[in-house]
Amino acid sequence: MNRYVLTLRCPDQPGIVRAFADGVVEVKGNIVDSQQYTDPDTGTFCLRAEFDSPESSAEAVRRTLVDALAGFDPIIGLRDADHRRRMLVMVSKFDHCLVDLLYRHRTGELQVDIPVIVSNHPDLAPIAEQAGIEFVHVPVTKETKAQAEADLLALVERHRIDFVVLARYMQVLSDDLCGRLSGRVINIHHSFLPGFKGAKPYHQAHARGVKLIGATGHYVTADLDEGPIIEQDVHRVSHAYTADQLVALGRDVERTVLSRAVRRHAEDRVLLVGARTVVFA
Amino acid sequence: MNRYVLTLRCPDQPGIVRAFADGVVEVKGNIVDSQQYTDPDTGTFCLRAEFDSPESSAEAVRRTLVDALAGFDPIIGLRDADHRRRMLVMVSKFDHCLVDLLYRHRTGELQVDIPVIVSNHPDLAPIAEQAGIEFVHVPVTKETKAQAEADLLALVERHRIDFVVLARYMQVLSDDLCGRLSGRVINIHHSFLPGFKGAKPYHQAHARGVKLIGATGHYVTADLDEGPIIEQDVHRVSHAYTADQLVALGRDVERTVLSRAVRRHAEDRVLLVGARTVVFA
Amino acid sequence: MNRYVLTLRCPDQPGIVRAFADGVVEVKGNIVDSQQYTDPDTGTFCLRAEFDSPESSAEAVRRTLVDALAGFDPIIGLRDADHRRRMLVMVSKFDHCLVDLLYRHRTGELQVDIPVIVSNHPDLAPIAEQAGIEFVHVPVTKETKAQAEADLLALVERHRIDFVVLARYMQVLSDDLCGRLSGRVINIHHSFLPGFKGAKPYHQAHARGVKLIGATGHYVTADLDEGPIIEQDVHRVSHAYTADQLVALGRDVERTVLSRAVRRHAEDRVLLVGARTVVFA
Amino acid sequence: MNRYVLTLRCPDQPGIVRAFADGVVEVKGNIVDSQQYTDPDTGTFCLRAEFDSPESSAEAVRRTLVDALAGFDPIIGLRDADHRRRMLVMVSKFDHCLVDLLYRHRTGELQVDIPVIVSNHPDLAPIAEQAGIEFVHVPVTKETKAQAEADLLALVERHRIDFVVLARYMQVLSDDLCGRLSGRVINIHHSFLPGFKGAKPYHQAHARGVKLIGATGHYVTADLDEGPIIEQDVHRVSHAYTADQLVALGRDVERTVLSRAVRRHAEDRVLLVGARTVVFA
Repeated sequence: MNRYVLTLRCPDQPGIVRAFADGVVEVKGNIVDSQQYTDPDTGTFCLRAEFDSPESSAEAVRRTLVDALAGFDPIIGLRDADHRRRMLVMVSKFDHCLVDLLYRHRTGELQVDIPVIVSNHPDLAPIAEQAGIEFVHVPVTKETKAQAEADLLALVERHRIDFVVLARYMQVLSDDLCGRLSGRVINIHHSFLPGFKGAKPYHQAHARGVKLIGATGHYVTADLDEGPIIEQDVHRVSHAYTADQLVALGRDVERTVLSRAVRRHAEDRVLLVGARTVVFA
Repeated sequence: MNRYVLTLRCPDQPGIVRAFADGVVEVKGNIVDSQQYTDPDTGTFCLRAEFDSPESSAEAVRRTLVDALAGFDPIIGLRDADHRRRMLVMVSKFDHCLVDLLYRHRTGELQVDIPVIVSNHPDLAPIAEQAGIEFVHVPVTKETKAQAEADLLALVERHRIDFVVLARYMQVLSDDLCGRLSGRVINIHHSFLPGFKGAKPYHQAHARGVKLIGATGHYVTADLDEGPIIEQDVHRVSHAYTADQLVALGRDVERTVLSRAVRRHAEDRVLLVGARTVVFA
Repeated sequence: MNRYVLTLRCPDQPGIVRAFADGVVEVKGNIVDSQQYTDPDTGTFCLRAEFDSPESSAEAVRRTLVDALAGFDPIIGLRDADHRRRMLVMVSKFDHCLVDLLYRHRTGELQVDIPVIVSNHPDLAPIAEQAGIEFVHVPVTKETKAQAEADLLALVERHRIDFVVLARYMQVLSDDLCGRLSGRVINIHHSFLPGFKGAKPYHQAHARGVKLIGATGHYVTADLDEGPIIEQDVHRVSHAYTADQLVALGRDVERTVLSRAVRRHAEDRVLLVGARTVVFA
Repeated sequence: MNRYVLTLRCPDQPGIVRAFADGVVEVKGNIVDSQQYTDPDTGTFCLRAEFDSPESSAEAVRRTLVDALAGFDPIIGLRDADHRRRMLVMVSKFDHCLVDLLYRHRTGELQVDIPVIVSNHPDLAPIAEQAGIEFVHVPVTKETKAQAEADLLALVERHRIDFVVLARYMQVLSDDLCGRLSGRVINIHHSFLPGFKGAKPYHQAHARGVKLIGATGHYVTADLDEGPIIEQDVHRVSHAYTADQLVALGRDVERTVLSRAVRRHAEDRVLLVGARTVVFA
């Protein structure tokens, strides 16, 4: 038996589940997990399902399901569960998120392939080397930014990359690049109550005496620090934490939240609906 | 349109989702929410779905679905979403869980009917009175325990009670009563790491210097403090908490966890599978 | 023996702890709890201590300590631990925070006196009545706002109020009033990552798909939703929560955070240092 | 100026803080942080303080404080804040706790020296090598256990080890070794509500349908899984987690809790009082 993962979005109307179920029966499949949600604001039907089928051709399964659902104007994603997403990681000088992603990759918790790590600084090359992953240094200056983004797109192309993770990559992507990779770039951003803009956010948080520091993992849109939220978490702090200790704790929150966001994306658990995400457990 | 909530458990096999979808189409229904999970240990297929249908007779809808799923040996629950579960609350002298349940009932967060509150002590009668709910004092001694349980069953019968909540009811139910109300009685129990047996658990927890205190909401089985877990939570404490402060904080955790467990049960989100629960979000 | 609670703020320099300890010895006291913190940004020494003394006159103890510490330009607070702070609660129409404060007051968890509840609407009068607390209806319109604030100050005066709690009081206080009651007014405010301005914040949070909703308890400054933070907490949510369910959950977070902030203030655990609070456990 | 960290435990009585403050004044010191707690059950006074002094000899400072406090039968610890504790890490085959400790060591978050890593298996030698730390393989069988513990004690001696961390070291220490290193060995242990004994605890937790999995960091006593608790935390799970996913999540909780426990111990924030710990923030 072969396990398949399906995602489906379409305007809601009666009969979708039956049409989907018909398609699964046609490939002699058995649905082992399924979660559905209809977004009340947009009327978008969202489905994620895993099913087993004796049919070994993912392409054949896809065609059957596309036919079965043809009347519903659907956006369908189908993946053989053994097929791992290909992920490109971008970093600058901070290593905590990269180290965490690589550790989870090594233990098998994160079922992705990581063919290449890209950075605008050479500092983290040894970590990539140690993990046996190609490291590409693409410096970015105001003058070379366009070329750097072209280089990145070429790498995405050459390595057949499914999605890009900004693991504390300290450069803003151009609107054009955000558009081309829409829904395929995940970023991690520190988050506080209340929010802070500008430089040295942990020092601002310290000056303000916040009792919680947090992080948000989200898809990248033109505004680097916004975009549809995938995962968030916070950690409790007290007045006794220095700004440096907030930074250290922030590393913990950031790496945890980013890894969770990446895992959910890699497992096709995140469906974009307008400015919101539907995240199936 | 009428909204229905369906729960379904049966041995897993191909075709269940299609049969269910066929049944929904037959009543001209539209599925607006659906969650499915197959328990790998027992091979039990579990489904919770909400759907809209122009058919106003719940009985007619039920019959259609029972027919559609007849081949799968299913356990089916169907409820008109407007039909509120009827809940009997049992208390002793502690009021924190009762007060919390009544508050959530009043705000509409907890969509149940509460026709009667039963206690082995008269202390909380004023709280019931103030909420306009009948209060029945059923004293329990070793000699009268059998009679008291018979009285309780009579109240369950007379008020057509769907489920019973032990809101810090400090009496152990007999095995016989547990059996008769199996899967229909919810209890709240303090919980610690490590666990403690015997009297004054918060004082034991204090002596042991635990850093977390918690509570578990669960279905009642013959062992009062065990049974399938519905919900758990913890609260962080420090050495500086006195045993009395642990008790006060314990009240917060207990009432929150019990209310969450009750709400999920009342919304048909909890499916029992062997010794485990499947809790749909 | 009498238990006293002391708070002390002064510019940091050597010898403060010895001077304090000398003063305690002079009143034959024994320090049972003490926490100290020096704010690195402002160089402010902060101390909270509890000590027992056979001296039964708080005034005598205060004079001794003021003398002992005279050389350090201190701000000293001294309270007989049996002396309960007097708290005025302001509400509008939402009752969840008020109900929670009154419940904790009744159980003895919140050791304060509540002589009066003030509201710009009559709706919550029955709750006050049931708790046996005077309820004063002070309507606020653009024209009567100055008079309403004068009435409030008169109530503060007449009831010898130590501090004011805005338990979802939906009116902005004037800068003048904020100034007069500086450091003595506590507010609760919903909080999100990222933050939202304007009306219907929970609906905005829903539209944005946040995964955490939170609340901040803080001292009131001219900007109602800012001011030194006392306590914060969050609760995890998912896409499946409706805006109304977010509001319901928000009630839970708000009441919990406000009650914790109030308790810490009432126990003299919160020391203001510039825009930050030092909160001793 | 030199920063010193003092810990002090003694039977509670009036005058301790003054005597301590006198000693600090004698070395021209300034107390920058101080936390005190008197355990009500045992009447034990506990103090942790940081102070600055122009005196550069820790030995001279210690003698002054010992003299100043001589009348109180104290247990005094004094450390130059620049003096890093020396920590020996023991592992078996699981690497998640070791990797996390080494990462925090590298970033400076964990201010300790790690001269040697000891294991009963050779598997993790490459991780030690990569970190530039000596790795000693000390196999343990029933026959060689006494010799292995003698080897360990010799390493503790030779490397002047302050404390030992069992980072998922899967061997029970003998009562004799526990006694010799009492209060100087930290272990990490999975924890659940309710607790489970015996093999494969995460699989038991899965079968029981727990909604929280946790970990406890504690000092080792003769019972490996008990002993005074330093730190605990939990992570929320659902029915949908497989036993393997619980194990993966357990790694996250274990490594986080162990690292926090180790940091607090290394910073002299943990004072043992009977079976409890006092953990100063």
